[in-house]
Amino acid sequence: MSEKTKKIIAVIGGEQPSSEEAKLAEEVGRELARQGAILVCGGLGGVMEAACRGASSEGGVTIGILPGNNPKAANPYVQIPIVTGIGYARNIIVVKSAQAVIAIDGSYGTLSEIAHARQSGIPVIGLNTWSFSINGQQDNSITLAQSPTEAVDKAMSLTSHQ
Amino acid sequence: MSEKTKKIIAVIGGEQPSSEEAKLAEEVGRELARQGAILVCGGLGGVMEAACRGASSEGGVTIGILPGNNPKAANPYVQIPIVTGIGYARNIIVVKSAQAVIAIDGSYGTLSEIAHARQSGIPVIGLNTWSFSINGQQDNSITLAQSPTEAVDKAMSLTSHQ
Amino acid sequence: MSEKTKKIIAVIGGEQPSSEEAKLAEEVGRELARQGAILVCGGLGGVMEAACRGASSEGGVTIGILPGNNPKAANPYVQIPIVTGIGYARNIIVVKSAQAVIAIDGSYGTLSEIAHARQSGIPVIGLNTWSFSINGQQDNSITLAQSPTEAVDKAMSLTSHQ
Amino acid sequence: MSEKTKKIIAVIGGEQPSSEEAKLAEEVGRELARQGAILVCGGLGGVMEAACRGASSEGGVTIGILPGNNPKAANPYVQIPIVTGIGYARNIIVVKSAQAVIAIDGSYGTLSEIAHARQSGIPVIGLNTWSFSINGQQDNSITLAQSPTEAVDKAMSLTSHQ
Repeated sequence: MSEKTKKIIAVIGGEQPSSEEAKLAEEVGRELARQGAILVCGGLGGVMEAACRGASSEGGVTIGILPGNNPKAANPYVQIPIVTGIGYARNIIVVKSAQAVIAIDGSYGTLSEIAHARQSGIPVIGLNTWSFSINGQQDNSITLAQSPTEAVDKAMSLTSHQ
Repeated sequence: MSEKTKKIIAVIGGEQPSSEEAKLAEEVGRELARQGAILVCGGLGGVMEAACRGASSEGGVTIGILPGNNPKAANPYVQIPIVTGIGYARNIIVVKSAQAVIAIDGSYGTLSEIAHARQSGIPVIGLNTWSFSINGQQDNSITLAQSPTEAVDKAMSLTSHQ
Repeated sequence: MSEKTKKIIAVIGGEQPSSEEAKLAEEVGRELARQGAILVCGGLGGVMEAACRGASSEGGVTIGILPGNNPKAANPYVQIPIVTGIGYARNIIVVKSAQAVIAIDGSYGTLSEIAHARQSGIPVIGLNTWSFSINGQQDNSITLAQSPTEAVDKAMSLTSHQ
Repeated sequence: MSEKTKKIIAVIGGEQPSSEEAKLAEEVGRELARQGAILVCGGLGGVMEAACRGASSEGGVTIGILPGNNPKAANPYVQIPIVTGIGYARNIIVVKSAQAVIAIDGSYGTLSEIAHARQSGIPVIGLNTWSFSINGQQDNSITLAQSPTEAVDKAMSLTSHQ
């Protein structure tokens, strides 16, 4: 399979996950690599680093869309650092570059990425992440998953008809 | 009072508000102008246009941070169009340019703006807008308001110690 | 004349102008204000500050499109700071927001702004600034001016048919 | 050699090169792949497509930083499309993501990229491209090359001490 035909899946999440959440992220990364997807993320620590570590351990390709100006700010498991210099405005590029997004826990940055993904019609799969409602009515547009494997299966399947 | 010393307050909200929400937005715009604030918004229709119309009717200054390349896409009540050409990545500029943000109803774009504001530590006042929780725990960082005047009072007051 | 119908003209130039260039920038700012234009610039020091100082001294409106996250980084003559947080990617917004651009001397940042303006079809008037050629052939798309007044006259006139 | 330790080199140039320039770009792409570099570009046609075609024919990795919202706008030789949605503001990301930049002929977009690269201290190697002078004094910061191989050799060497 060439890079060209691989799916690109984003993993989003905060820099300070619990150890449980970091384990989920690492397993998501591993499973993405096993299923032949390219992983894109924000390139920094926490959930992003754990996911890249998992993907790398299975021989997967990892891309980090960095907010700053220094490629060395990428976590050590990012193979291809994209240096934007545009700060958190880079969040929208992380999700737009993916065919589906897996959100794990999350900070406000993650919430902004979920919102940008939904605004662009990109599917979001949630593992222990944000939920939100408008005027008291729950928004159900995030597809929930109970495990890393289920999250990756759903991400790969939701993109399959594009 | 010179422009220099005026506060800049963002009004964010979707392009397809209900008529009730459009009325709230227009009254927020009017009250911001009465209290001497400059209004910044995304420059398009719906909540943005209603707020600009209100501010203009009271002699206020309105700025529209446009996603596209054409200043003529601004609603007719935008006095100063900023033409970004960066699409919805401009959402983060709308909130960063403000000392406080008033959110009225909202689309996913609005949710992304609330998230970016909170990520940057900018106060958000909510009128009939998104609420969200992480892992079942309600996030209480949005300051709720029951009326346009209360929203503007809170926005002006939350910025006052900067 | 309302803000709405005013022209917006960009003044671009480096942070370390010679004293002669700073004088040119200040006089350009003054003349823009006298002719009723809104001045937009990158909001920082040097040419930008001199132009804003000139415009302010004649009661003009000044907008600074800042690269960073802090409105206080604006020079003291910026009345309306737009806080982008996107670094030098903001250069393109400075020129896109204007109907014409006046370039004074300049750094590489200024050269990028001239190029972005030409790419977008926005007229550039040059006072002591960059010239460039492709494969030995001079590019003549910058309109040269010999004085601040001539630069402003040309900027106002080149925009007049839009 | 893992992706991690590969150099990333940008190839920049217009969408409407002469056939001679397209040949130069294709050969630059081939040589970059032979020397083990990852190619990053703006992802569209012309010089960008020719360079990606060359790199692909030698088994190299190609990244396209796209201005729009659709990954399908990438030329067919882009293996990893990064979808920015930020228009020509993406130009600065193309050069910031590289350790050196090879400019071939060029449009105003290319000129903006050269300027952004010089502003960020990233080396630029020129093959039949822009030259520029400030107040009549030639800027010599572009390293000239007479052939694709020389351009790639210089790009690889200029990055080697980072």
